[in-house]
Amino acid sequence: MDEFTSIAYWTSGRQPLEWQRERGVEQGIGDDAAVITLPAVTCGLTADAHMVLAVDTMVEHVHFNSITMADEDIGYKALACNVSDIAAMGAIPLHALVAISVPKSYDVDRIRRLYDGIYACADKYGVAIIGGDTTSAPSHLTISVTVTGAVEAGRALKRSGARPGDALFVTGPIGMSAAGLHLLQHAGEAEQSGYSRLIAAHQRPAPSVRAGRLLLQSGACTSLNDSSDGLASEVWEIAEASGVRLLIDEQALPKSGSMAAYAARAGVPPLDWMLYGGEDYILTGTVTGEDAAEVREAFLREGLPFYVIGQVKTGDPGVELLLSDEGFGQSQHSGAARGGRGSRRTILIEKRGYNHFSTVNG
Amino acid sequence: MDEFTSIAYWTSGRQPLEWQRERGVEQGIGDDAAVITLPAVTCGLTADAHMVLAVDTMVEHVHFNSITMADEDIGYKALACNVSDIAAMGAIPLHALVAISVPKSYDVDRIRRLYDGIYACADKYGVAIIGGDTTSAPSHLTISVTVTGAVEAGRALKRSGARPGDALFVTGPIGMSAAGLHLLQHAGEAEQSGYSRLIAAHQRPAPSVRAGRLLLQSGACTSLNDSSDGLASEVWEIAEASGVRLLIDEQALPKSGSMAAYAARAGVPPLDWMLYGGEDYILTGTVTGEDAAEVREAFLREGLPFYVIGQVKTGDPGVELLLSDEGFGQSQHSGAARGGRGSRRTILIEKRGYNHFSTVNG
Repeated sequence: MDEFTSIAYWTSGRQPLEWQRERGVEQGIGDDAAVITLPAVTCGLTADAHMVLAVDTMVEHVHFNSITMADEDIGYKALACNVSDIAAMGAIPLHALVAISVPKSYDVDRIRRLYDGIYACADKYGVAIIGGDTTSAPSHLTISVTVTGAVEAGRALKRSGARPGDALFVTGPIGMSAAGLHLLQHAGEAEQSGYSRLIAAHQRPAPSVRAGRLLLQSGACTSLNDSSDGLASEVWEIAEASGVRLLIDEQALPKSGSMAAYAARAGVPPLDWMLYGGEDYILTGTVTGEDAAEVREAFLREGLPFYVIGQVKTGDPGVELLLSDEGFGQSQHSGAARGGRGSRRTILIEKRGYNHFSTVNG
Repeated sequence: MDEFTSIAYWTSGRQPLEWQRERGVEQGIGDDAAVITLPAVTCGLTADAHMVLAVDTMVEHVHFNSITMADEDIGYKALACNVSDIAAMGAIPLHALVAISVPKSYDVDRIRRLYDGIYACADKYGVAIIGGDTTSAPSHLTISVTVTGAVEAGRALKRSGARPGDALFVTGPIGMSAAGLHLLQHAGEAEQSGYSRLIAAHQRPAPSVRAGRLLLQSGACTSLNDSSDGLASEVWEIAEASGVRLLIDEQALPKSGSMAAYAARAGVPPLDWMLYGGEDYILTGTVTGEDAAEVREAFLREGLPFYVIGQVKTGDPGVELLLSDEGFGQSQHSGAARGGRGSRRTILIEKRGYNHFSTVNG
C-alpha cells in the first residue's frame, strides 16, 4: 500500500459527511488543507464565538511503549489529551488534524488500530477528523494532534485570573494515571487485573469537557488548567500567571482508594503520584470563594465530582502545602519548612512535574 | 534550562502583542490553548470567511539532515511548507502552532536557531505563532507545524474542479529544489557556490501566497494544488479528484537555466527532477481555457510568472506527457507509449513523487 492508499484505509468511511457538516466541515481529509466554518449555531454559542487551538505530541519511548499502551490506546490518548486542553479553556472541542510519523517497519494494520482509537475518542467527544499529515520516520512513532474548539467570545478560561480569597479546586481524584503507569511497568498481569481503573486512567483518560463548560457557565471560575503535567506544576502555573500564592491542604486532596491501596503495596508515597504524576486530565483552578459551594452543587447535580483543595492567598507567587497531621512520610520534598499552623506544618512545593528537559516523571 | 524556560528563550518577545492582535490573537503562547477570533476584517474578507487548516511534519534523516539544512533553514522550511498548503487553497495564512520533539543531546541554542528560522518565515508571511508543544525524543528531531488561514466563504480552491477545455498551469519553474538537494548531497562547496539559487530553492522555499490570491480573485481557477510532492503526483491528484485526463506538454515546462546546467553536469535527466522532485512549493492547477491569457496578464502585472503547461481532456483519470522532439532521453518511465502526435510521442506518466511508503525521492 502506498501513502495515499494507506491514509484512505485508515480514515475513509469513519465519519459520515453529514455528521462532519454539522461541525462546520466544508472540506475534510483530501486536499491541501481543511476548510471549516465556525459552527457557532450548532454549538449553541453566539455568532462571535472565539476559536481555541491546541497541539500535543506523543512520542514512543517517551510517552508510551508496547508495554504501557496498545495501539488503540495510543490513538485514543493522543486525541484525548488535546481535547483536555480545549476543556481547560472552558471550550467545546470541534475538529482535529493528525500528524503521524511512522517507522517503515510498522505495518498498516497497526496504524489502522491506532486510528481506531483516534476515532473512538473523536466519536465520544464529537470531534471531526479533518486532516493531517503522514510521513515516515527513521525510528519510533510520533503522533502530533491539533484540535480546535469554540468558546463564547471573551470568556475563555485562562490561567491568569486567580485572586486572593478564591478557592482552589480539582474536578477528580489525582495520581491514578501515575499509579496505572507504575502498575504497567512493575506489576504482573494478575496484580494488574485487580487495578483496572488505574490502568484505564493511564491508557484511556477522560478529558473533562463537561466540567469545563460548567465552570465557564458558572461565571465564578477565575483560572483553569488541566492536570496534564501533574498537580504541582499546573497550580504553579496558575500561581505565576496570576501573581498569587496558592495553599493546598493535603487532607483535602481527593485520593482514589485503589491508588492508595496500590501505593501502599508498591511502597510509593501516594503524594508523589498525586502532586507530580500528571496525565490525569482532570481540571484544576480557582473559583471565587463565595461561589465555591454553589459551583460544587452544580457539579453534583450532574453527577460530577468537585473538590475544594485549598485557597488563594497574597504573597510571592508560589505553592504551599499544608501537611496532614502525620507529616509527609517518605516523600521527597526539597521545599523549606514554613512554620506551623497548629500542629500541622506548611512547606513550599517545587515547580516540577513531567518536564521534558530537566526532570523525570513520578 | 527547563522546558518552560527554554520555550520562553525560544519564543518570547518575538512578535509584538499588538501585531498578534491585528491577526485576531486573543491568547497566544502560555495557556492550555490559543484563543483567536477570525480576523476577517483585517484580511479584507467578508465577515463569514471560512477558516483553512493544515499540518505538515518534517523529520530529521527523512526530510533533512545536517548536510542539507542549517538549523534556521529547518525552522523556516517547516513553516513555509505549511504556508504553501494555505496558498494552495487561495487563502491568507494567519496563525501557526509548532510541535517539536527534541533529542536530549540537542542544546537549547540549536533550537533557538530553528525558531529564528520559524520567526523569519512568520514575519515574511504575516503569520502569528500562537502556541505549540515541546517534548523530548529518543532520537532525531521532528517538527510538526499547524497553520490556519482565512478565505472568502465557499471560495477555497480545491483539487476537484478541473473540466475538459481548461488550461493546466504552473506558477514557477520546477525541479529546482530537487537539483539543490542533489547539489547538497553530491557536490563540493566550490561547485555549490555556483548554484546558490538551487540551494536556496531547497532550503528556503517561497510559498506562493500572492499567486494563490490572484488565482482566487480571477474567478477562473477551477483546481489548485501546491507542488510539494512533485508535479507528477500533484497533477495526478487533480486528475483523480476532478475525474479528468490531463495532458502536459514537455516543451512548455518552465526550466530554470541553472537547474538545466547542473543536471547536464551531474548526468541527471532534468525531467526526473521536474516531474518527480517535489518541494518546489509553486502552485499547479487549472483555469478555464478562455481566461488563461487574462490570468497570465494579471500575474505579469504583479511581476509573477505563470506558465500554461498543458490542458484538460476527457478520458479516464490520468496524466499524459507530450514528449518534446528529442524524446525522453535517459529518463526512466514505465508508462506505455500512446502513439504519435505528428513526430511527437505521448506517454502516460506514473503517479509517483515523494511518497512516504513506496517510492524514493527523485
